[in-house]
Amino acid sequence: MIGEQYLLLPGPTPVPERVVRAMSRPMVNHRGSEFKEILINVTEGIKQVYHTEHQVIIYPASGTGALEAAAVNFISPGDKVLAVSIGVFGDRFATIAREFGAQVEKLDFPWGEPTDPQVLRERLAQDIKQEIKAVLITHNETSTGVFNDLAAIRAAVGEHPALLMVDAVSGLAAVALKMDEWKLDVVVSGSQKAFMIPPGLSFLAFNDRALRIHQENKNHKYYWDVSAGLKYLEKGQNPYTPAISLYYGLEEALKMMLEEGLDNILIRHQNYREMVRAALKEMGLNLLAADGYASPALTSVIAPQGIGGNKIRQYMRERFNIVLAGGQQKLDDVIFRIGHLGYVRELDLLAVLAALEIALLNCGYPIELGKGLKKAQEYISSI
Amino acid sequence: MIGEQYLLLPGPTPVPERVVRAMSRPMVNHRGSEFKEILINVTEGIKQVYHTEHQVIIYPASGTGALEAAAVNFISPGDKVLAVSIGVFGDRFATIAREFGAQVEKLDFPWGEPTDPQVLRERLAQDIKQEIKAVLITHNETSTGVFNDLAAIRAAVGEHPALLMVDAVSGLAAVALKMDEWKLDVVVSGSQKAFMIPPGLSFLAFNDRALRIHQENKNHKYYWDVSAGLKYLEKGQNPYTPAISLYYGLEEALKMMLEEGLDNILIRHQNYREMVRAALKEMGLNLLAADGYASPALTSVIAPQGIGGNKIRQYMRERFNIVLAGGQQKLDDVIFRIGHLGYVRELDLLAVLAALEIALLNCGYPIELGKGLKKAQEYISSI
Repeated sequence: MIGEQYLLLPGPTPVPERVVRAMSRPMVNHRGSEFKEILINVTEGIKQVYHTEHQVIIYPASGTGALEAAAVNFISPGDKVLAVSIGVFGDRFATIAREFGAQVEKLDFPWGEPTDPQVLRERLAQDIKQEIKAVLITHNETSTGVFNDLAAIRAAVGEHPALLMVDAVSGLAAVALKMDEWKLDVVVSGSQKAFMIPPGLSFLAFNDRALRIHQENKNHKYYWDVSAGLKYLEKGQNPYTPAISLYYGLEEALKMMLEEGLDNILIRHQNYREMVRAALKEMGLNLLAADGYASPALTSVIAPQGIGGNKIRQYMRERFNIVLAGGQQKLDDVIFRIGHLGYVRELDLLAVLAALEIALLNCGYPIELGKGLKKAQEYISSI
Repeated sequence: MIGEQYLLLPGPTPVPERVVRAMSRPMVNHRGSEFKEILINVTEGIKQVYHTEHQVIIYPASGTGALEAAAVNFISPGDKVLAVSIGVFGDRFATIAREFGAQVEKLDFPWGEPTDPQVLRERLAQDIKQEIKAVLITHNETSTGVFNDLAAIRAAVGEHPALLMVDAVSGLAAVALKMDEWKLDVVVSGSQKAFMIPPGLSFLAFNDRALRIHQENKNHKYYWDVSAGLKYLEKGQNPYTPAISLYYGLEEALKMMLEEGLDNILIRHQNYREMVRAALKEMGLNLLAADGYASPALTSVIAPQGIGGNKIRQYMRERFNIVLAGGQQKLDDVIFRIGHLGYVRELDLLAVLAALEIALLNCGYPIELGKGLKKAQEYISSI
């Protein structure tokens, strides 16, 4: 099949040509002045994306690594932790905390729904002795395509002293997040999402309150130790060899993001959500996430009964070289997911929606070609 | 200054154009068939380089990450561990094991010398109750430019049941290592050395004996857990998002390595060592490592008294855009290090040696230009 693959996953996302070219530069000494300049630049850039003036450590690791780093730096063995979960990645954060010795209490919400801040508020109100040391929460749940309203979550935590620790791996820059304004204590993110670079870097941001708790932390750590990270950052270095080519890409991607404007990027992703959802609804499809908390980064579609998500994905892949994500765990074959995250154009989504209508028709779903697509066109035409 | 920088570090090493181009390919689904094929390919290729038929896990992390993985998968808290050290990286492996709860006994040798297998043999002979669970050792000590004879080390360990765990991050493929033949139980390596790709991937190989010990292991682990790694490897996946672009580079680099021939690569590096050492000796310089155990991957040069290594490095950098490594910790300014590892040509080394003579002369060291260089030319001419 001629032409490039359409990769519409909620990560890894397509990498812009500018970023690819930046990543092609020759290696430099990771203890030298060129790398120091890059490290300072990208650390400042990431802080802008996080809307924070606090600390950021960059790991040569994927997002799961920075989640582990959050657990081992800010949770001590035996600590009570309230892990809020609305899907696979909420569960993963809870599992990691438990593996490193936390007493984890899960607060689960049905898959496809966001966290109800009121339930969280009530649970924390019962913790009269303030034994809960941390609240873990997902910013954008990739497995369901639902985001949590972190400002409301912060309000629900209120004056409870638990650290608010956020997995923003797939959400940061695509879904609103203001670390300092919303008093988020620890925020994790990764490179292969809205940052538009290949996987292999992840980011751990934390404020002074978290840093003080880190200083008393009793978990074993070496690779993830933020004290070592901060010490070397002062010298413009990483404690061990950093993933240099990905830093080149990150520097260029941050430049692109700041050129586009962080607010514009959020609006762009909201528009993707709106056009995709309008089209899918018109096709008669049911969406897993209701309006109001559907993710701007991806859309989860409930596959028509008797067809299944995987058959549709296979058709899209074999006929059009379009890669969509499947459902995870209990949602396997129940849903398919369209990523509209990072370096994606309206044009790409129009093409994908057009192809999807064809796929549905040929998989035995009764549909009038062009009907859903027209809704997407109308939405684009209106903005 | 026009032209490319000469990067002569013991990692990161120059990246071949073929590898750069491979890394520029678009992203794919890390849970899809394209990635599965790459993962199977590179895992097989790495096994060939290790000379092993056992297991290899690839981490999105730098070499230090895979050292941590070795510690948390194969050493339990409270285990007695004998950490042999001949420099900075031997110390680092010991520190990591201690951080994760091992009772570490150091067996130190002077910096610039290799491990004396007889001393190791005698220490293990004293361990009548066989309480030592693991022996940690460095393959190629990057801080001093000395390699350990792992076949002799294996013979010294003899029938003692301790796991033999090797940090081969900077040595693998440049210095002989036969994992299965030498019964090395755990071997760690990294991408930014003889593998010729940018930093960001590391490799952990282990045999069945190590796997059985892993299954009883009591350390906390998630990101580094080899059980999860093996389980997903069967599906052609990584437990979490892999660093896709670096895999592309690794696949191409392995192709190049197998085309050149693994034995030829070892000989090439030995020739680099011989030509560089012949030239430096003729310049009247003292070398930290004596003949017989000097690393084929890098050469540590004792800076002339009153000049210091850093002044020479600065001259090389500013006048010629040649980057050499400095001494680490107590060797700072005492030595400088010339990396001749990975994608380096004889031509590059001739140019660097010629420049070094000029640097030495201009830093106040009496030298006849061309004298040392001639020895390198003669060596090349003779092979």
